[in-house]
Amino acid sequence: MEKEKYSIIVFSGEFDKAVAAFTIATGAAATNREVTMFFTFWGLNILKKKHGRSAVGRGFLAKFFNLLMGGRKNLPLSRFNFGGISPRLMTGMMRKHNVATLQELIESAHLLGIKLIACEMAMNILEIEREDLVDQVQEVIGVSTFLDYSQDAKILFI
Amino acid sequence: MEKEKYSIIVFSGEFDKAVAAFTIATGAAATNREVTMFFTFWGLNILKKKHGRSAVGRGFLAKFFNLLMGGRKNLPLSRFNFGGISPRLMTGMMRKHNVATLQELIESAHLLGIKLIACEMAMNILEIEREDLVDQVQEVIGVSTFLDYSQDAKILFI
Amino acid sequence: MEKEKYSIIVFSGEFDKAVAAFTIATGAAATNREVTMFFTFWGLNILKKKHGRSAVGRGFLAKFFNLLMGGRKNLPLSRFNFGGISPRLMTGMMRKHNVATLQELIESAHLLGIKLIACEMAMNILEIEREDLVDQVQEVIGVSTFLDYSQDAKILFI
Repeated sequence: MEKEKYSIIVFSGEFDKAVAAFTIATGAAATNREVTMFFTFWGLNILKKKHGRSAVGRGFLAKFFNLLMGGRKNLPLSRFNFGGISPRLMTGMMRKHNVATLQELIESAHLLGIKLIACEMAMNILEIEREDLVDQVQEVIGVSTFLDYSQDAKILFI
Repeated sequence: MEKEKYSIIVFSGEFDKAVAAFTIATGAAATNREVTMFFTFWGLNILKKKHGRSAVGRGFLAKFFNLLMGGRKNLPLSRFNFGGISPRLMTGMMRKHNVATLQELIESAHLLGIKLIACEMAMNILEIEREDLVDQVQEVIGVSTFLDYSQDAKILFI
Repeated sequence: MEKEKYSIIVFSGEFDKAVAAFTIATGAAATNREVTMFFTFWGLNILKKKHGRSAVGRGFLAKFFNLLMGGRKNLPLSRFNFGGISPRLMTGMMRKHNVATLQELIESAHLLGIKLIACEMAMNILEIEREDLVDQVQEVIGVSTFLDYSQDAKILFI
């Protein structure tokens, strides 16, 4: 019997949504499902190598956007940010309850064989290069290739 | 022939998204589809028993988050909140057009046989107990059990 | 063999999410998939004919909401708006990289045979009339009709 497949489009760059995406993805992969994560727009932020607000984009507009987006360590929550306090609180609560943090989730995703893919078009628009992203990213592809990969999968948009 | 199945992950706690989730769910259930709703993170807020900003969480961090999240009567909109005016306006418009309000939608969902499920991990992180949630919640389960339930279903992430 | 089908529920009215929805939709349609887009709540805003903050709704509450929502030219981003600067910046970056803008995406969607549908209930609540929406909208239907259309489709909620 063929493995059940999940494709997760990670559009959002907020900390809580990223945690939700990885929790579903790793939960699925750990129970013998095949999982692909496609990071696009703000979601690319989750995969950025450099921490902090280092502007990885090349042009001015890209730099401006990247600055606003911050790095992986600076992901905001989708609600209540208060100058970055809430993500740290949330991380604290996750620690306390032994839930993996984002960095661990990326690593776990990779170890569980989850395919981490970056969206080519969004990288072009935001002027992000392959080397700006963490090594665990396996491919940079366009939307229609991603749809081909997702033919027999359940797709989530997060 | 087997019933068509829908699984709805309710991650967001905003009033408008909650209404959208329940509208799709009840619309599906009323037309002979099998529906499961899995409430996680901010979505758990929709299921809270106590109204108002009563902090149901146990620890300090949990209390802080729960306070911020408010109760079921205080769900914000995903856009434009203005100190809580907009949800009431929206409710008013829904009333005027005979659309059910959230409380009625939860009740309808239950009567239509929709399975209301709370996410175990999110409850742990936010330190919410089973008794803090409305009686209509049938189960508290983890992500992979939810994925098992969703094997033949279409999944939405809201 | 039957065509693969996609149904996209466009709930959000933000510029970036609208672009994401149309990019997935046109990418799918251009590669021989059958696509339906169902616009509801804030998503209806994307389909409004009149530009600017002209209040198309009829009653006071509807006018208030429509005013807040703005017109198609005024879609905010889901993050960072700064008085409307960011969508224009994003459009500029999209131009620079030859990515189609929203208006072109709606037109392309239509030309590619994508079915553009408006949600009846949301139109009632927000008091939007058929003539307020662009001509490319093919139908105004309820949720359960939309679910019927989506029987063999992958569904995304954006």
